[in-house]
Amino acid sequence: MSRLWNPSIHKLHPYIPGEQPHLLNLTKLNTNESPYGPSPKAIEAIKNAANEDLRLYPDPTARKLCEVIADKFDLKLDNVFVGNGSDEVLAHAFRAFFRPENDILFADVTYGFYPVYCELFGLSYRHIPLKEDFCLAVEDYQGPCGGIAIANPNANTGIALPLDAIEQLLKSQPDCVVIIDEAYVDFGAETAVSLIKNYDNLLVVRTFSKSSGLAGLRVGYALGAPELIEALTRVKDSFNSYPLPRTSQAGAVASLLDEEWFGKTVRHIVATREKLIPQLEALGFKILPSQANFILIHHPEFSAVTLHNRLRDQSIIVRHLSSVPRIQEWLRVTIGSDQDCENLIRILRKILENPSLKPV
Amino acid sequence: MSRLWNPSIHKLHPYIPGEQPHLLNLTKLNTNESPYGPSPKAIEAIKNAANEDLRLYPDPTARKLCEVIADKFDLKLDNVFVGNGSDEVLAHAFRAFFRPENDILFADVTYGFYPVYCELFGLSYRHIPLKEDFCLAVEDYQGPCGGIAIANPNANTGIALPLDAIEQLLKSQPDCVVIIDEAYVDFGAETAVSLIKNYDNLLVVRTFSKSSGLAGLRVGYALGAPELIEALTRVKDSFNSYPLPRTSQAGAVASLLDEEWFGKTVRHIVATREKLIPQLEALGFKILPSQANFILIHHPEFSAVTLHNRLRDQSIIVRHLSSVPRIQEWLRVTIGSDQDCENLIRILRKILENPSLKPV
Repeated sequence: MSRLWNPSIHKLHPYIPGEQPHLLNLTKLNTNESPYGPSPKAIEAIKNAANEDLRLYPDPTARKLCEVIADKFDLKLDNVFVGNGSDEVLAHAFRAFFRPENDILFADVTYGFYPVYCELFGLSYRHIPLKEDFCLAVEDYQGPCGGIAIANPNANTGIALPLDAIEQLLKSQPDCVVIIDEAYVDFGAETAVSLIKNYDNLLVVRTFSKSSGLAGLRVGYALGAPELIEALTRVKDSFNSYPLPRTSQAGAVASLLDEEWFGKTVRHIVATREKLIPQLEALGFKILPSQANFILIHHPEFSAVTLHNRLRDQSIIVRHLSSVPRIQEWLRVTIGSDQDCENLIRILRKILENPSLKPV
Repeated sequence: MSRLWNPSIHKLHPYIPGEQPHLLNLTKLNTNESPYGPSPKAIEAIKNAANEDLRLYPDPTARKLCEVIADKFDLKLDNVFVGNGSDEVLAHAFRAFFRPENDILFADVTYGFYPVYCELFGLSYRHIPLKEDFCLAVEDYQGPCGGIAIANPNANTGIALPLDAIEQLLKSQPDCVVIIDEAYVDFGAETAVSLIKNYDNLLVVRTFSKSSGLAGLRVGYALGAPELIEALTRVKDSFNSYPLPRTSQAGAVASLLDEEWFGKTVRHIVATREKLIPQLEALGFKILPSQANFILIHHPEFSAVTLHNRLRDQSIIVRHLSSVPRIQEWLRVTIGSDQDCENLIRILRKILENPSLKPV
């Protein structure tokens, strides 16, 4: 116990992000980054924003960026909130909407930051178990609650929830905010944005880190009814008025406007995923049905930790979420480039053929 | 009351940052930005970081940047914490160290974000009045308290506190964290960094926004004992693992290494300040003694709001902090370029010569 800390700090269990190793020649499949990087127009826009004007504060409202986002989704400016990565947006949303009287609800296998936010803000929470097949049943999210967070597709499983299920949930919990975290939605799931017009309790959270290939720029956003956006703005302006550097605002705008690059790279990642899955199945892996830019895989004869470590020995990094009980024997593998996937298959084949690794 | 907000959100009074107008040809003296902008080497480094690697998350620990900062101040890596502007660093510090059992203490005239953080984190606070001459007396910060925040030089007044006064305060409040917010320290005040080795309750907070000319990049940092840095890291990793874009980390590193640019531009601003003060005094202004890149000025015959508005009519923007009772008749004026200051004097002379503006 430090005499100098707020006592609640001792109880925090901070989120542990995937490793960002400094080694060269890695096949980095651990943090769901895009293998193709940002639109060249975004890079150009950032270079152009790197000028003497950096002496000036950024626009605290990031108006231009919000306008471009609103336009893309056929929404109004007052439906849009932007922040320093979707992690910051989610943090503000937990603070702004979730209530301490009842548990916050989220799945037992989902984005690991949700319970961390709850701890930070003194909110109690309840893990709702996914079904045995790792699908989420919205019927399990009934009764009094302080708020609901659902990643769609779900983090770590990649499984998507259909739009009618989300609508059913929004209807059944009209007095609590439902956050739909769409970090991975562009890789095959259906966005809930169309429901915003009819459900004022829906907040959709998105990021430039995955499908836009801009994890290094830290831009995320939320879409929802003006009343929700107003609360987020109040929290943000009570925390940090200018979370988005000029360079990040400029890059995100240009990225969003380059729909061709976006479409091309996302389609490529999806095609690679669909090509990779049967190859892994041929090696004996079980794979959850993914609509994301990652897959969760399990081998019945090899332990996840062994596979993870042997892959690492061969310079391939995947994510082993060893602290989540139900997926301790699974590995989360980012869909990289075709070359990355060929590497992965080649090395996995070598590992699996080495009988010294058995038994599990 | 929104049924969807956490009830505490209704009670927030968010910080209102100085305006960032989109008008051209403004003399912008309202938000204490540097007239000279960042080191050209920082601009170059940001341009170089605008590349395909933006697909990857930044280093969540910003290790390189922390190393360069530690080196500059002759500290260790575990004495350094970086964040998305000093506003974010301050927010995390209020959350990490300040305790709800007793009031948080800060001056009645100081950085307006301090009470806002307290509201956000549910901390009670007490304004300690500055002396009549706007000086801060550390003797007034005795007795039980939940934490202390002091801007040095003080925000809005520009008046600096001597190092021995800070040391006296640290000694007299050994069980509470004292934040010394050194946003403006490089323009003539004495940094408290040398006290870190002897006082584990001292947190020094700094920014690249003022003396490094990088307000648009959003980088701030804190220096303190390892135990304090650990708490800040726990809070940060419970909120947003990657607050600093790759571009911001790269720019801040290069900025810090270019000591020549830093020294030259800071000296220029100080020289301009010292030249401007007698010119304003000749126009009848009273000016608080400033060690910052701004001055707080008052004219006995003209109301602050009138002067503010007339300056604005002439495309000069200064800050009128009308919500702070004791400085309602004062204007805060950023030290701009020599040209900016000549403009200011020229326009002020015109305004003051217009008798239709009197009486106050």
